[in-house]
Amino acid sequence: MTARFFAPGAERSGERVALPGEEAQHLTRVLRLGAGASIRVFNGRGHEFDAVVETAAKSGVQVVIGAAREPAAREPGVAVTLAQAVLKGDKMDDVVRDAVMMGVAAVQPIVTARSDVTLASVQRGTRVERWGRIAVSSAKQCGRATVPAILEPRALESVLAALSSMTLPAPGLMFVEPGVLPPEGGSHSALGDLDSAPPRETTVILGPEGGWEPGEVERASAACRLVTLAAPTLRADAMALVALTALFTRWGEL
Amino acid sequence: MTARFFAPGAERSGERVALPGEEAQHLTRVLRLGAGASIRVFNGRGHEFDAVVETAAKSGVQVVIGAAREPAAREPGVAVTLAQAVLKGDKMDDVVRDAVMMGVAAVQPIVTARSDVTLASVQRGTRVERWGRIAVSSAKQCGRATVPAILEPRALESVLAALSSMTLPAPGLMFVEPGVLPPEGGSHSALGDLDSAPPRETTVILGPEGGWEPGEVERASAACRLVTLAAPTLRADAMALVALTALFTRWGEL
Repeated sequence: MTARFFAPGAERSGERVALPGEEAQHLTRVLRLGAGASIRVFNGRGHEFDAVVETAAKSGVQVVIGAAREPAAREPGVAVTLAQAVLKGDKMDDVVRDAVMMGVAAVQPIVTARSDVTLASVQRGTRVERWGRIAVSSAKQCGRATVPAILEPRALESVLAALSSMTLPAPGLMFVEPGVLPPEGGSHSALGDLDSAPPRETTVILGPEGGWEPGEVERASAACRLVTLAAPTLRADAMALVALTALFTRWGEL
Repeated sequence: MTARFFAPGAERSGERVALPGEEAQHLTRVLRLGAGASIRVFNGRGHEFDAVVETAAKSGVQVVIGAAREPAAREPGVAVTLAQAVLKGDKMDDVVRDAVMMGVAAVQPIVTARSDVTLASVQRGTRVERWGRIAVSSAKQCGRATVPAILEPRALESVLAALSSMTLPAPGLMFVEPGVLPPEGGSHSALGDLDSAPPRETTVILGPEGGWEPGEVERASAACRLVTLAAPTLRADAMALVALTALFTRWGEL
């Protein structure tokens, strides 16, 4: 199989672009490819091309863009932003990898009442950068030509405020455990209650290991729908894969 | 939350049972519970009870079974056996844990043409035992009162032969990658082609990291349906969670 590289500068056939540092190292050191090698490049914005390595040196790798080609992985018709509460340890790495594989448009890390970390510490650290690298590597592995954006971490409340101001039919879907009571006057939706036609875009909101505080569920119910799965208690780090698969199945995208 | 233990001997209220060794250790050493403690027990066959610790010593833990209670996790209406090709390293541990969490009735480890291991080595080793312990621990974590059986490892061909002789409407569903050509005269089903009413039982067949050999797909097509997801290339160790979630969603079980 032809090796595939992330070349964010690739726009049009005939142009020359440099591969980013990590991609250049992967090409020269791991795959030991050199000038003349046929490869594929994708620009992270949905475009994929044949390409030929022109120069491969320690200083960098230059490639000439060839014909455009259909990416192996079709993008879903619904643009899903996954608003995932930052999980403990490196569990969030797995969630980013899984979410990219399942076809999200963006990942919005959020900090909630029961998060293990503070917003300041996530914003200050190098984790957003690392999640960005994981998004690239997952897109390479699963054949997507789109690299979902990793958005700046925000508080749940800030995401809910943004959703409240939107005029979309289904701005957000917050997944809550079966045991959680709906707030006064509110209710939970089952998967089968959701419209089987996909919205054009939506935000899927998933909580941390310790779940949601009642106040969070109440405020969320004003800004988005509360969705409950008829499943056993699911691990927090498995929720992204399960929720995205269930929604894409419901919407006929899988 | 009341601690929950696996007590395969629990049958009826009023009886006394001993907890298995690992469960007894968990009760005394990790949770430091003693005589008089209120706990719950489940017998792995779908029954759950209140219980009280009668004696807790190094030699073992005895409990008195109390009232029967509804398990936290409802069992799906369809009995799914997951026939999963044994994966590399400890990836199979994760698959067993995920499959139990999602509600399978049994896990059938299989060895295929592109498996990394031989049938003899899997049958000889201690892995089946370990998967059994993982099944118990996953059932404890997710609230199921049923512990799915881990069946003796078999060759794919032996599973296909058994499916061929069944008279069920949908004995088996083998997931194949989109790129795989259907055998002559055969075809692939999309998720949406499957009957939305769940079968009573079925076997879901998932391949190893390297996928299926063409001959395997051809022989399988005579014994079961070939199902293809409209998704990017999915990691072999994520397929169980994705396939089970997609099917349970399709069947209205989630």
